[in-house]
Amino acid sequence: MSKYVEYRREFHKYPEQGFREIRTSARIAEILTGMGYQCLMGPDVVKIETIGTETATEEEMKAAMERAVSQGAKPEFVERTKGYPGVIAEFDTGKDGPVTAFRFDIDCLPYDEPRKEGYRPFEEGYISCNAGSVHACGHDSHTAMGLGIADQLMARKAQFEGKIRLIFQPAEETFNGAQSIIDKGHLDDVEYFIAMHVALSAENRPLPSNTIACGCKDFLSDRQLDVTFHGRAAHPCGAAQEGKNALLAACTAALNLHAIAPHEEGLCRVNVGELYAGVAPNTIAPNALMKVEYRGQTPAVAAYAGKRVFDILDGAAKAYDMTYTYLDYGEVPAGKSDDAMMAVIERAAKKVPWFEKIYFEGNVGGTDDAAAMLTKVQQNGGMGTYIGVGSDTTQPVHNAEFDIDEDCIDAAIDLCMFALEELHGIG
Amino acid sequence: MSKYVEYRREFHKYPEQGFREIRTSARIAEILTGMGYQCLMGPDVVKIETIGTETATEEEMKAAMERAVSQGAKPEFVERTKGYPGVIAEFDTGKDGPVTAFRFDIDCLPYDEPRKEGYRPFEEGYISCNAGSVHACGHDSHTAMGLGIADQLMARKAQFEGKIRLIFQPAEETFNGAQSIIDKGHLDDVEYFIAMHVALSAENRPLPSNTIACGCKDFLSDRQLDVTFHGRAAHPCGAAQEGKNALLAACTAALNLHAIAPHEEGLCRVNVGELYAGVAPNTIAPNALMKVEYRGQTPAVAAYAGKRVFDILDGAAKAYDMTYTYLDYGEVPAGKSDDAMMAVIERAAKKVPWFEKIYFEGNVGGTDDAAAMLTKVQQNGGMGTYIGVGSDTTQPVHNAEFDIDEDCIDAAIDLCMFALEELHGIG
Amino acid sequence: MSKYVEYRREFHKYPEQGFREIRTSARIAEILTGMGYQCLMGPDVVKIETIGTETATEEEMKAAMERAVSQGAKPEFVERTKGYPGVIAEFDTGKDGPVTAFRFDIDCLPYDEPRKEGYRPFEEGYISCNAGSVHACGHDSHTAMGLGIADQLMARKAQFEGKIRLIFQPAEETFNGAQSIIDKGHLDDVEYFIAMHVALSAENRPLPSNTIACGCKDFLSDRQLDVTFHGRAAHPCGAAQEGKNALLAACTAALNLHAIAPHEEGLCRVNVGELYAGVAPNTIAPNALMKVEYRGQTPAVAAYAGKRVFDILDGAAKAYDMTYTYLDYGEVPAGKSDDAMMAVIERAAKKVPWFEKIYFEGNVGGTDDAAAMLTKVQQNGGMGTYIGVGSDTTQPVHNAEFDIDEDCIDAAIDLCMFALEELHGIG
Amino acid sequence: MSKYVEYRREFHKYPEQGFREIRTSARIAEILTGMGYQCLMGPDVVKIETIGTETATEEEMKAAMERAVSQGAKPEFVERTKGYPGVIAEFDTGKDGPVTAFRFDIDCLPYDEPRKEGYRPFEEGYISCNAGSVHACGHDSHTAMGLGIADQLMARKAQFEGKIRLIFQPAEETFNGAQSIIDKGHLDDVEYFIAMHVALSAENRPLPSNTIACGCKDFLSDRQLDVTFHGRAAHPCGAAQEGKNALLAACTAALNLHAIAPHEEGLCRVNVGELYAGVAPNTIAPNALMKVEYRGQTPAVAAYAGKRVFDILDGAAKAYDMTYTYLDYGEVPAGKSDDAMMAVIERAAKKVPWFEKIYFEGNVGGTDDAAAMLTKVQQNGGMGTYIGVGSDTTQPVHNAEFDIDEDCIDAAIDLCMFALEELHGIG
Repeated sequence: MSKYVEYRREFHKYPEQGFREIRTSARIAEILTGMGYQCLMGPDVVKIETIGTETATEEEMKAAMERAVSQGAKPEFVERTKGYPGVIAEFDTGKDGPVTAFRFDIDCLPYDEPRKEGYRPFEEGYISCNAGSVHACGHDSHTAMGLGIADQLMARKAQFEGKIRLIFQPAEETFNGAQSIIDKGHLDDVEYFIAMHVALSAENRPLPSNTIACGCKDFLSDRQLDVTFHGRAAHPCGAAQEGKNALLAACTAALNLHAIAPHEEGLCRVNVGELYAGVAPNTIAPNALMKVEYRGQTPAVAAYAGKRVFDILDGAAKAYDMTYTYLDYGEVPAGKSDDAMMAVIERAAKKVPWFEKIYFEGNVGGTDDAAAMLTKVQQNGGMGTYIGVGSDTTQPVHNAEFDIDEDCIDAAIDLCMFALEELHGIG
Repeated sequence: MSKYVEYRREFHKYPEQGFREIRTSARIAEILTGMGYQCLMGPDVVKIETIGTETATEEEMKAAMERAVSQGAKPEFVERTKGYPGVIAEFDTGKDGPVTAFRFDIDCLPYDEPRKEGYRPFEEGYISCNAGSVHACGHDSHTAMGLGIADQLMARKAQFEGKIRLIFQPAEETFNGAQSIIDKGHLDDVEYFIAMHVALSAENRPLPSNTIACGCKDFLSDRQLDVTFHGRAAHPCGAAQEGKNALLAACTAALNLHAIAPHEEGLCRVNVGELYAGVAPNTIAPNALMKVEYRGQTPAVAAYAGKRVFDILDGAAKAYDMTYTYLDYGEVPAGKSDDAMMAVIERAAKKVPWFEKIYFEGNVGGTDDAAAMLTKVQQNGGMGTYIGVGSDTTQPVHNAEFDIDEDCIDAAIDLCMFALEELHGIG
Repeated sequence: MSKYVEYRREFHKYPEQGFREIRTSARIAEILTGMGYQCLMGPDVVKIETIGTETATEEEMKAAMERAVSQGAKPEFVERTKGYPGVIAEFDTGKDGPVTAFRFDIDCLPYDEPRKEGYRPFEEGYISCNAGSVHACGHDSHTAMGLGIADQLMARKAQFEGKIRLIFQPAEETFNGAQSIIDKGHLDDVEYFIAMHVALSAENRPLPSNTIACGCKDFLSDRQLDVTFHGRAAHPCGAAQEGKNALLAACTAALNLHAIAPHEEGLCRVNVGELYAGVAPNTIAPNALMKVEYRGQTPAVAAYAGKRVFDILDGAAKAYDMTYTYLDYGEVPAGKSDDAMMAVIERAAKKVPWFEKIYFEGNVGGTDDAAAMLTKVQQNGGMGTYIGVGSDTTQPVHNAEFDIDEDCIDAAIDLCMFALEELHGIG
Repeated sequence: MSKYVEYRREFHKYPEQGFREIRTSARIAEILTGMGYQCLMGPDVVKIETIGTETATEEEMKAAMERAVSQGAKPEFVERTKGYPGVIAEFDTGKDGPVTAFRFDIDCLPYDEPRKEGYRPFEEGYISCNAGSVHACGHDSHTAMGLGIADQLMARKAQFEGKIRLIFQPAEETFNGAQSIIDKGHLDDVEYFIAMHVALSAENRPLPSNTIACGCKDFLSDRQLDVTFHGRAAHPCGAAQEGKNALLAACTAALNLHAIAPHEEGLCRVNVGELYAGVAPNTIAPNALMKVEYRGQTPAVAAYAGKRVFDILDGAAKAYDMTYTYLDYGEVPAGKSDDAMMAVIERAAKKVPWFEKIYFEGNVGGTDDAAAMLTKVQQNGGMGTYIGVGSDTTQPVHNAEFDIDEDCIDAAIDLCMFALEELHGIG
């Protein structure tokens, strides 16, 4: 097993959710420092105003820092986070040349990983030891890829010119992770942008091992809302007519949100991912919190989805004579990889024997907030791509039992090194 | 303010949920001991097997005991609970005579009490200081009534014969509170049974201050289920077809459960009080927990409701190709007060000037697990009643802002003393 | 088989829906005329303005008249209807005395009666021969009772004083039948009012053969609406985003209307009885018509139901960004039988051996527009009752296979004659 | 206005629904005969066994034939239909050469066309004069295009070789129209297949005037079901517990059918286009008929949709303890135009000045049963395409107010003549 795969398993074992990636950040910085990098951490990486204060109380930040130490992170690196995750290491050749940025996302998903026979993370001892936290979206492998590239660069220092920025980004699954780094200015001077994700699709089928898609053009926009219905509690027998049932308002909304008609112009996706309602079995539910996200392949589709979502929320509230309020997490934009950058990756992929089948274009089929960074770079005249690194998997992405073919990690590192030879190679 | 009203306000300030009423029990025992009673507590009151072990872990019992002490309960009484709530004090005259049992329920509801201007508990400083806990069903006043009756009995000791058992019961709002005491045998020898509730209805309208209903015959049965739908997580864009949406299954079930048709034979009530579904906004919800209760005025109605509930659960699960499991809390029976006992109360009420309007029969319009005790006593040849003590209220029962006219407390105590004169008076 | 039972079977065989009862009216008038009565018919019975012009086009009235003749009605009586149903025959003794009115409803329900073995109407040849029309609510037997009373009165002419008005009313199942007769003034001078219905309930259980309930006090109000949602058609693939799906708006409304919470003060019933939506399988439905009725046991309950109904309609329309309009059929009032009149019936029932079990009060458990007549009589200082005549049945009321124990017909006639002896008997 | 546009307006004025296109067929045959064609009609065009006998009773066929004559069709051509629509005219050059088939669909949609100011068909006098029938999908123009091609061919007879078959197909909107012609063998010898549709899309936006898409590859499969839920009627107050509410079962199904999750592999579309439920406002609905169609872009998506549809139907029926049955209209297959044939059209389009913008590939975004013919031809080694002829429209397809830019008709005729020059031109 390569040391990069060992890194992946370590991160898999200690998964941390968005804006809680303190152990992860401390370990990344420790490893990178060991390689000879100087790392930016925490408030030097992310803009605190963008993150907002609701994300974590001081107490929660303190708890995350304490857990990090108890799980093997070095206190000096934990201290440097100041409670905020994120690491940036810059490989500066000292020679003139372009600036390339890589984005590696480092957060996990909020589920429990099943402890069961036949499931490799359990059998081989790297199953999540943090309750309600699991790397079911492959970010553990992305982090390992980033460390691998960092390592390779140091080993071949003299062969490159320009600057290569390695961004280890928190909170991809939630919001504001990418934006908090953009707002700090770390993408302002970037000419080439690369992000990768394991196990995407091409031709609308999952990418298996030994395949690659050189870029994706189907990033959907994504907007998330926390919607709260404000009803009125009452005894369901003794005074039912006095109640205003927020649970039923939310259920009505949820069903109708999932029934929003498609849009001819492109993909339109709506999900009610979470619902929490009520206070007691024998009380009409006075409250309901519903987490909604909607995505559109074009601005027109996103606008259509938004109109439909709010019509339905208005209608459900009206039907139960109540109000609702919502917290808006903002919108990740739609986005597209650049053909020229995809061609760079295609050429590199041909040099990696592991990739037996190369798709020029793949499907992300959804959203990644890398699209915000990509868009930023494109607005400044740069270009970029979002690569799908094929991998057999045990379960689809976002399933708690998602495990990968770890061979893809080394292949992805090789791929990026070949691309860097083209973009930053001397002479 | 009478000291009984002061008791009520103290209990209002420190509300405790079902099977967590440790401070409440300790204080009741302390006060009763002060009056000269010998109290049964905890495991001598409730049968532990009936309660079951899921109700509270040892850690939770310990936490409740610690909080009780920190909120002013005497450690010696807290110790005697052994972590289990409930107090029984017996007024034994030493003379031959009947056995009468009073039931006073002592638990609170799981909401937050609003801290707002103009709301008396807030303005006068007895608002709940326990998060997610509020006496929104008047059990604080019932507890005060029980202490008042105990006090009056001691003051007029020589005037009575037989035995009068004062049962301070935990967990009326949840399940098994009454049953755990029945199973311990405390109702086996009872001839007369009395329970009271503030603010019921008569002629289907709320009972205001200065009114009373001498009994209720419309106890519905009540059965509670915790239903869990078992779906499958997936990314809502990348692999939506792999998901099985437990949130939508639950919403479909909830709407249809509330749409169960009425039954000609009597009241039929179904409530989905709580719903918790999903793991992340951007994941198809793999799980949903739904707390359902259903009630019927007769066994036929209860059976009909149960059939419809399970048909709907089966159907919702089938529609989403998933299974469900449920935890069954059992059934509180339907019940009826006895005319003869209601007549005793009617005669007593006529002697209490505060009761300006006396209804022979009132409406509980739902359930109280006092019905289980009442049924037990009737099965043994005894008789009983469930009295509605009128009170103006700020909000309907089970609303977090429910407050009462405290004058009803003294009136209820007087009422019971007059009833006891008839049932237990010497010669 | 008595001739009254033969009448019932004849009416059963030729059922006619509300305001189409031309054959029925013509046959009633023919039979009554044969007994010696002078009959009012059609426009002399019902106020045309009350009925409204949407009920039937001239063409439809003509068709109903033609069918009546083809099904054996005498043309002279059909002519006298002028296309409007309803018959009133007055038994005027010529002597001073009170005025009593009986109401017999004559319309059927709009279903098909099943032609199947073992079902008596099929086997004995009196099954409905009119498509989509069936006497599934017993009005065939009510009509027969009316003819029986008319016949008995003529046979015992000299024994009575005052006036006895026999009202054969159309359109009980729909609306305005009773009101159209009230508005014509036929209830203005009435002191005693009696209506009967087979197969009601008492103590919330169906009344079997050999039982009677002397009156009902639980008439719910009833209001009917035809609600139309106005959406927009579009191809469900090619232009789905342009559509506004009226079918889904209506389905959302229907589910939530059936989920309206109960009211503590009395019965509250909402039914969406019919729904018609869409134009083609491959088109987003631009239209939906929904027939809604709601009932309340008291004015407060009816007002609550109305508020909830319109909130839900508003909300469903809002959720789908469309408007709705509705046709309001008006409200039948709640109502109660009078104890004094129920006592008259009780005394009469004791004289009829067939009634082995007499309930003083029964349950209609819903609505009958006889309540409008009853209320009118009570407002003028008169009194009345609505009697439940027990009968074993094959299926519940409003089921297409509803058949009765015909012995109840003669028993009901005897009952009314004994009641008339008390109310109108000479000396 | 060209005579072809006049034809279009005539067909627009007398729209006929699937398998009722008798006047349309008679007029087509009359016009073609006038040009010198020998026409196959009715049973020589369509296979009667494929159509099935439920489609039309003899009485209905007779009525359609009578209306045809009354609306100006010549009786001799009406007679030749024998009650079945469809016309085939073959242009046989008598010289060796390939066989090309054109498909023109001739049926309308089942709506009412609005009579309103500013709407050209109303203002210029060609609005539908058949109730519940409207050419809202452009088949009137397709028919005119077919007649135009027929006319041009005759005018330039000597320039072509081989055979050109002009198929005027009934019942595209419903099912079996294309299949009934395939089953008769009319596609067995075809090498080139061409069908056209006005106003499709390209790049997921509607094709405006002066544009063309040379083929479509996104035909979804399509399967239609008539689903009937079998409940039980009961009075909604008197015996609600006896009822089984088919209306609510259908509403539950409809909402959940529209909420079926998307599929990663391709478009998945489900529509409940029609719903008919219930018998009376005051009766629990014992029946509901729901017209469902579902489509998938690939066999895997279609299979997924079918599984979800039947799970939901099963679940809704289970929830209401009832059964359902369904009539299955079969499946139109998914399909794709051939690149080689699209290239023929591209070359032809470049010769038609009206087409200013030529898209090689367009989007049908749904289904056309031309896909069944196309597939048949491809299975035999032939090739074909389905062309989108751009046109500005007043409303989206399938909206009752859909009107087109008639200039597209002449442009489409010219296009096909240029294509025929390539495919059938001599030397």
